[in-house]
Amino acid sequence: MDIIVLSHEATEEDIQHIIKRLAGWGLKINLSQGTERTIIGVIGDTSKVTEEEEDSIRAATGVENVVRILKPFKLASREFRKENTIIDVRGIKIGGKRIPVMAGPCAVESAAVLTSIAEKVKASGALFLRGGAYKPRTSPYAFQGLGEEGLKHLAEAREKTGLPIVTEIMDPRDLDVISEYADIIQIGARNMQNFRLLLEVGGSSKPILLKRGLSSTIKEWLMSAEYIMSRGNQNVMLCERGIRTFETATRNTLDLSAVPVLKQLTHLPVVVDPSHGVGKRDLVAPMAKAAIAAGADALMIEVHTNPEEAMSDGDQSLKPEQFEKLMKELKPVAEAVGREI
Amino acid sequence: MDIIVLSHEATEEDIQHIIKRLAGWGLKINLSQGTERTIIGVIGDTSKVTEEEEDSIRAATGVENVVRILKPFKLASREFRKENTIIDVRGIKIGGKRIPVMAGPCAVESAAVLTSIAEKVKASGALFLRGGAYKPRTSPYAFQGLGEEGLKHLAEAREKTGLPIVTEIMDPRDLDVISEYADIIQIGARNMQNFRLLLEVGGSSKPILLKRGLSSTIKEWLMSAEYIMSRGNQNVMLCERGIRTFETATRNTLDLSAVPVLKQLTHLPVVVDPSHGVGKRDLVAPMAKAAIAAGADALMIEVHTNPEEAMSDGDQSLKPEQFEKLMKELKPVAEAVGREI
Amino acid sequence: MDIIVLSHEATEEDIQHIIKRLAGWGLKINLSQGTERTIIGVIGDTSKVTEEEEDSIRAATGVENVVRILKPFKLASREFRKENTIIDVRGIKIGGKRIPVMAGPCAVESAAVLTSIAEKVKASGALFLRGGAYKPRTSPYAFQGLGEEGLKHLAEAREKTGLPIVTEIMDPRDLDVISEYADIIQIGARNMQNFRLLLEVGGSSKPILLKRGLSSTIKEWLMSAEYIMSRGNQNVMLCERGIRTFETATRNTLDLSAVPVLKQLTHLPVVVDPSHGVGKRDLVAPMAKAAIAAGADALMIEVHTNPEEAMSDGDQSLKPEQFEKLMKELKPVAEAVGREI
Amino acid sequence: MDIIVLSHEATEEDIQHIIKRLAGWGLKINLSQGTERTIIGVIGDTSKVTEEEEDSIRAATGVENVVRILKPFKLASREFRKENTIIDVRGIKIGGKRIPVMAGPCAVESAAVLTSIAEKVKASGALFLRGGAYKPRTSPYAFQGLGEEGLKHLAEAREKTGLPIVTEIMDPRDLDVISEYADIIQIGARNMQNFRLLLEVGGSSKPILLKRGLSSTIKEWLMSAEYIMSRGNQNVMLCERGIRTFETATRNTLDLSAVPVLKQLTHLPVVVDPSHGVGKRDLVAPMAKAAIAAGADALMIEVHTNPEEAMSDGDQSLKPEQFEKLMKELKPVAEAVGREI
Repeated sequence: MDIIVLSHEATEEDIQHIIKRLAGWGLKINLSQGTERTIIGVIGDTSKVTEEEEDSIRAATGVENVVRILKPFKLASREFRKENTIIDVRGIKIGGKRIPVMAGPCAVESAAVLTSIAEKVKASGALFLRGGAYKPRTSPYAFQGLGEEGLKHLAEAREKTGLPIVTEIMDPRDLDVISEYADIIQIGARNMQNFRLLLEVGGSSKPILLKRGLSSTIKEWLMSAEYIMSRGNQNVMLCERGIRTFETATRNTLDLSAVPVLKQLTHLPVVVDPSHGVGKRDLVAPMAKAAIAAGADALMIEVHTNPEEAMSDGDQSLKPEQFEKLMKELKPVAEAVGREI
Repeated sequence: MDIIVLSHEATEEDIQHIIKRLAGWGLKINLSQGTERTIIGVIGDTSKVTEEEEDSIRAATGVENVVRILKPFKLASREFRKENTIIDVRGIKIGGKRIPVMAGPCAVESAAVLTSIAEKVKASGALFLRGGAYKPRTSPYAFQGLGEEGLKHLAEAREKTGLPIVTEIMDPRDLDVISEYADIIQIGARNMQNFRLLLEVGGSSKPILLKRGLSSTIKEWLMSAEYIMSRGNQNVMLCERGIRTFETATRNTLDLSAVPVLKQLTHLPVVVDPSHGVGKRDLVAPMAKAAIAAGADALMIEVHTNPEEAMSDGDQSLKPEQFEKLMKELKPVAEAVGREI
Repeated sequence: MDIIVLSHEATEEDIQHIIKRLAGWGLKINLSQGTERTIIGVIGDTSKVTEEEEDSIRAATGVENVVRILKPFKLASREFRKENTIIDVRGIKIGGKRIPVMAGPCAVESAAVLTSIAEKVKASGALFLRGGAYKPRTSPYAFQGLGEEGLKHLAEAREKTGLPIVTEIMDPRDLDVISEYADIIQIGARNMQNFRLLLEVGGSSKPILLKRGLSSTIKEWLMSAEYIMSRGNQNVMLCERGIRTFETATRNTLDLSAVPVLKQLTHLPVVVDPSHGVGKRDLVAPMAKAAIAAGADALMIEVHTNPEEAMSDGDQSLKPEQFEKLMKELKPVAEAVGREI
Repeated sequence: MDIIVLSHEATEEDIQHIIKRLAGWGLKINLSQGTERTIIGVIGDTSKVTEEEEDSIRAATGVENVVRILKPFKLASREFRKENTIIDVRGIKIGGKRIPVMAGPCAVESAAVLTSIAEKVKASGALFLRGGAYKPRTSPYAFQGLGEEGLKHLAEAREKTGLPIVTEIMDPRDLDVISEYADIIQIGARNMQNFRLLLEVGGSSKPILLKRGLSSTIKEWLMSAEYIMSRGNQNVMLCERGIRTFETATRNTLDLSAVPVLKQLTHLPVVVDPSHGVGKRDLVAPMAKAAIAAGADALMIEVHTNPEEAMSDGDQSLKPEQFEKLMKELKPVAEAVGREI
């Protein structure tokens, strides 16, 4: 809250009332009385003014609008920390020159299938294995994931391939068991504003991959990162995975401009998930290349040995040979923008 | 999954493969071979086909598209239950001829303020007291609600006024304590697809008020109701509270057409919250009237004795005298559409 | 352009440069130097600053953002004209206590069908006949309207029933011929920002019904009204007909909150077209009632004697008996909000 | 219209009625009677069924839904023409291996400024000069372009630099004068569904650059291309320039996934305009690179020697030295995806 616009009808009494309240928060003002509007510029550290205090000013008699200039997030902001945050997971860096690729099935189905996929994506150059043991599904009648058994399969696959694992949390009560197995804990799009879950993982020491909500603004997304960081966990990476728009040709609209916008606003690494972003196998490769060209720090890509029999999101999973081809094609694109893969 | 559209390139082998898979699920087909496309009409009870099975068909070689005709929700559907569900809360019916109004502050702040508001809204004709003890806030630095203390204030206000209370749950771990106090448990917009929370309240015997997610389709919303109902709790009411669009003149875009659409698709009562829908005090009254004219079964309206000092959403709260005036204006509108208030 | 927010890096030279440019436009400033940001409050009549001048300030070195407080429309604004504009068309007032209903087919098909519809809607209480002679169609292969022949049919129907006619213009070159026949000229949603067409009808003396663009903000819509008014034609009415969102259960999302928002911002009459807004016959009646409850000054409703054979938008047209029933149901709703129909 | 879904209540008579109508259009059916729904698969060339005929079936008694499988565009479709369309403009090919860049100011301001910009962008490698002589502006009070004088400046700049010119048309009455000067005629986003204008340029022999509407689906966009092509002009290129979403961090949301989607659906060249897509100078370079990586055939980029004094869109224009740097950076990205620049 940095600028308060008063309406035509605002009285001197209204103005004094606002000045008094601001003074109570240690803030001074600079009054700019125009012919058509009077504007109050607030002087001082307005970042301490809470959302509800700002709302109360907005609700005051004579106030037409309140404009916030300062960003509402701090720990996540580029101003708080100039240099890029680099997250180290079992020796692999996210946020540096190298662009790690996280690959694997949408859902963990069996130890055998998972390990087979893990071996194949590793051979093609993936540095992380992704796979969901707890799956958020639109329908209560759909496969909900294998739970802890799935986590064990992931650990097994890690043992065999050395790939660290990324897996999703849906419930604060699962944090302990997931922490036992996961290397990176993912917060899915539908839980981006599950604030209790954010606070819970904020108390964890595991790196967090925070997916963007389907209709979340970049500012709201950074506020959710701030929730996690405010509890002490600074190892947050942001994952763009498509937003909801009117267009139906793709499952979601992958907002790649979010990548350079985030690079300006925050020091946190930016991951792109083209698989969920487009929802169609044939579109994954061009969008993966575009993500790298736009400045992504890491990619998350769905791969399945048998997409047709996949228990979730089969139509957007690459087959291992498609993934292998893509990895080869990504290499020169990364180099073209001064990165490596 | 009821219609499968094959691509130009689909071979006889592709078709046989699909027929075999469908047969495995007890389904027959009706092949419609056109000059440009071949279409498979699926015969049998396709509602048992899960989302992932449908996805796997979509991912099969030769398949261009899969169209689902049957609705994916059952217990919530009008076809499952023809007559309207009427939910009885301490003798007050929701879903009948009378349109109950739920009123109160956004957040519970103190016993004194809350009771004062409760008495005033009761005097104007409100039948429920709303108020949040656990508040989902965009910023970790904002007021997060009083927690159990807030619940106690609500219970106290209920004791003094007789108004049953509606309050929000954010975390499955809070169900026990909230159940001790609440008459209706609210699931907020941001948690509409917090599936674990839905399952948890599905096991409760308390009526649930399920708010629509900011970017949720009506179908997804009904699937979330289905989650709750699939666990046994049939007392679900759906609350429209505005969706996210490109328009910024209002906080959200209140989608009143959702009311008659829901009335066709489901037997569950439909509540409208114009306060969150528009986010501006002056717009609440016309939209409350419009909600009733569109067929709403209940309204939820924010009221605060001192909006300017409210700890949350002050700019959309009515003052008690404004609420009193509105209640008088709503009466003839309700009568005009054959209802009462 | 009323507030200029400077970035951290803005130098004294940058500030002097901006001050000098503002002075060139006769504007003074009020500098508010904060610890984190410096804000320039602009003093004087900033409404004369053009869009491109504002853009040039936004592009200046050291500028982070420019905030416009004053509304960019003048003639259309409530501040310019406090009392409601009432448009008189052949003795029927739009914008007064009475709520006229404009009814008829989407497209004019034949003189016989049109006159039959006109007689029926008149008998039910409609005060205007709507019908398109020039039809904007998504496909070049679809029926594009009868052109001047259709206008003649409209005039014939007017002669027989006395109902004034509303019909759409798509091309500035058609203004003369349409003006010969039409009583109100409609600008369709797709042409809301066809600025040449707006200027053209701005030079006409016919009342204009300006439909909202599919993804136009209320502000942009009022700017389009301003285009017309800036050329001299003050008889503009605004017609809400649904905006494009992610929801697919309805053809568009009818934004009824636009009605009270417009009532605050402008003196122009507000029309609602629930037929296009929802796109489904069964939803028209509840939304028509809701529109009146929200404060609409007029309604536009599609009616066809044989929707199944209609050459355009058959699935959203009411049958005459449905329209008759609706008109009876609208009466008490209008009275409930102090209007009549 | 390829599949007709009947409701529960459809009678034998309803079905016979539909069959009879389809027969009248030379179509046969394949009836698939399920336990819950009856589905009619339409056999024959349904592409001749017009939109209004489809609507009339949708409106028939007993019909629940009509699904169209075949694409509604023909001439623009990849199925109609397998190989990529390559448009030759004064010897420069659009749609081939080389990716031409169109650069220049948003609006033409003066001969001197324009020629200076033209010389600079040419030196950096641009192959076309862009610049608007007729400008669609939200406000009637903003600079509307220099008109024919601007066209003359463009021709002068072309003479001096050899760069062919791209300029926008807003009104069918301007086609003759614009055709005298322009090498490529641009249809702006706001006129994408100005169908009369589309038909007009469809009769021209000039190549057309068709920008995507702010809220147009890819299908609607291709239908607008079809409008132009149906009149004989096959030289259409499609230009993605951002769609309207809820996100406000960027001016629009550049939908790069439209590039590979279009590459599947159509044979027409795809251009990307990152300048309008993001609206902020700093974001243009990463999105230009991403566009090439996604498969764009050409780029359109705003450049101005003095963005601060630009009469339109100054905040998204690159300075010549920024453009020069970008052109160098684009080279390796183009090569990385097998193209050249």
